[in-house]
Amino acid sequence: MTVSTPPVENLDDDLRSLVDGVLEGDQLSLSRLISRIENDAPGYRDAVKVLHEHTTGTRTIGITGQPGAGKSTLVDKLVDALRERGLTVGVIAVDPSSPYSGGSVLGDRVRQTSRNEDPDVFFRSMSARGHVGGLAAATFDVVHAMDAYGKDVILVETVGAGQNEVEIVRAADTVCVVALPGAGDDVQANKAGILEIADVFAVNKADYDGAKRTAQELQQMIRIGRDLERSDAGDPADDPDTWVPSVELTVATTGDGIADLVEAFDDHYAFLRESGELEETRSRRFEQEVRTHLQNELEDLGDAMVAAHRDLFADDVDPYTASEELVDPFRRAVEGHLEDG
Amino acid sequence: MTVSTPPVENLDDDLRSLVDGVLEGDQLSLSRLISRIENDAPGYRDAVKVLHEHTTGTRTIGITGQPGAGKSTLVDKLVDALRERGLTVGVIAVDPSSPYSGGSVLGDRVRQTSRNEDPDVFFRSMSARGHVGGLAAATFDVVHAMDAYGKDVILVETVGAGQNEVEIVRAADTVCVVALPGAGDDVQANKAGILEIADVFAVNKADYDGAKRTAQELQQMIRIGRDLERSDAGDPADDPDTWVPSVELTVATTGDGIADLVEAFDDHYAFLRESGELEETRSRRFEQEVRTHLQNELEDLGDAMVAAHRDLFADDVDPYTASEELVDPFRRAVEGHLEDG
Repeated sequence: MTVSTPPVENLDDDLRSLVDGVLEGDQLSLSRLISRIENDAPGYRDAVKVLHEHTTGTRTIGITGQPGAGKSTLVDKLVDALRERGLTVGVIAVDPSSPYSGGSVLGDRVRQTSRNEDPDVFFRSMSARGHVGGLAAATFDVVHAMDAYGKDVILVETVGAGQNEVEIVRAADTVCVVALPGAGDDVQANKAGILEIADVFAVNKADYDGAKRTAQELQQMIRIGRDLERSDAGDPADDPDTWVPSVELTVATTGDGIADLVEAFDDHYAFLRESGELEETRSRRFEQEVRTHLQNELEDLGDAMVAAHRDLFADDVDPYTASEELVDPFRRAVEGHLEDG
Repeated sequence: MTVSTPPVENLDDDLRSLVDGVLEGDQLSLSRLISRIENDAPGYRDAVKVLHEHTTGTRTIGITGQPGAGKSTLVDKLVDALRERGLTVGVIAVDPSSPYSGGSVLGDRVRQTSRNEDPDVFFRSMSARGHVGGLAAATFDVVHAMDAYGKDVILVETVGAGQNEVEIVRAADTVCVVALPGAGDDVQANKAGILEIADVFAVNKADYDGAKRTAQELQQMIRIGRDLERSDAGDPADDPDTWVPSVELTVATTGDGIADLVEAFDDHYAFLRESGELEETRSRRFEQEVRTHLQNELEDLGDAMVAAHRDLFADDVDPYTASEELVDPFRRAVEGHLEDG
């Protein structure tokens, strides 16, 4: 299957001027274009398609962890550290924003907006009033927009709340999971999951009791996980082509440990490039994006089918049987398509 | 479109004996059947279809709110109050369980398992290691199983984390949002969303400062929301056919206010029955279930399409263009189907 990107002519004047502005490095254009993306404005997809031709594959770092772990303060300090190196930075703070997701994110947003004084830091928070799949799609789009705008590094901060947020942060080149001292005992059952997504751990609020123990526990979990993988692969020796997640102690409020954390990010990025895994990561991200867009479209098509068959619901039928009836045309279409092609 | 439920003969011996056990009121069978549902065991859908024929439409109450609001303790006390009336109770505690969702749920689970001494309370926690859509489907299935088992009331407790959890709790007859004193200022922006889903508010930890003020703020928000709706509808008078969410102050740890909260649930349920809205609520729930099952099936079909077209990703194409290619067969199938009638 080969496809081609539609011509730029599809863009209306408003979007065209915003796209031009973004490519020229105009911050207001970037801000406005992101609003078009967030609001599902007509034609925004065509704008993203055009921007995509100008992306360079900017380095992205995902920061995640449970509420209260100090992610926002940590991100602030990371921005400072990256700015000191002369890098321009984009920050996307993703708020899953269920109707009752609590309020701390709002405060963060206000605080970080004060960054707007530095023209080389662009901060944007994204929330989903509607559905979360849309939020993932919008976040990917904003990464492309910031990339085309010319940012050197993009930080994507999410609250670790649901599967979709995991998919968002997983799409980053490097994933940093922010943990808290003493969290070790409680999240025992979740650690396997954490190990899967984390490239780097930051045990934040490391001035609190138990930080070192938590770091040791995480390191132990990493070691056990690695040993299991090695014995599965029948490989007794250390494999230089495997990344071993590092664990850093940080105190975001004072900035302690931030330099080491940035260094850990650099080590991971160097590993990705040298091992050839960067290409794999990017290809996985592309696939995740396509998947997200496709699922959003299918959700709409599914809803159209449900709406057209409300009569089903009057019958004394169970929900599984009803849904099987509705999925049938889709299933036949896929089967036909896969046979043809 | 008319469809019929497939015959019971589809069930294998294992599932048939579990279904028989559930219908005879055997708790171990219920527990095992729920495990089959959770683990996506082969044939579990047929078991749910058969159970569906034996459901009576048990009253369900959804309890939701942000982490730390004291939902689990509140649910414990609600169970006590319902048991005192001689009602049998099922509790489903839904844990969105992202890889790093923190640990408090685990502790709750252990605590509430001690309830197993009372044979007329059945507690089950559900978590999604996989994807959240599957969790919603499984929760609906477990509601049907507890209904067919013969529970008088089913409480569904969720952490208000994402859109899918909202869909789960929304499917209940009565939705109770648990808020905390002082949350008022922070969640201002989210209140519109809260108002949409809450039938009853519980301001929990009402022994803390600011509880009364938070209750007043919520009541004011409810009044404003109602006035807006009335003026939209051009209806100047109070409409007895509209439910006005009530706000109760509770201290779950001591049990203060629990009796009033249960009474508020009863008032809402009486309203639903007398106004005819119960039927609408049930029909909405059925539609939501069908939608959830359909979306899960479509997700699998979408993934099959992505997997069959990995070659797309090698091309220099943007993710939107790629997903549009993949959605095309689905779109044509729906269009053809809707035209055919």
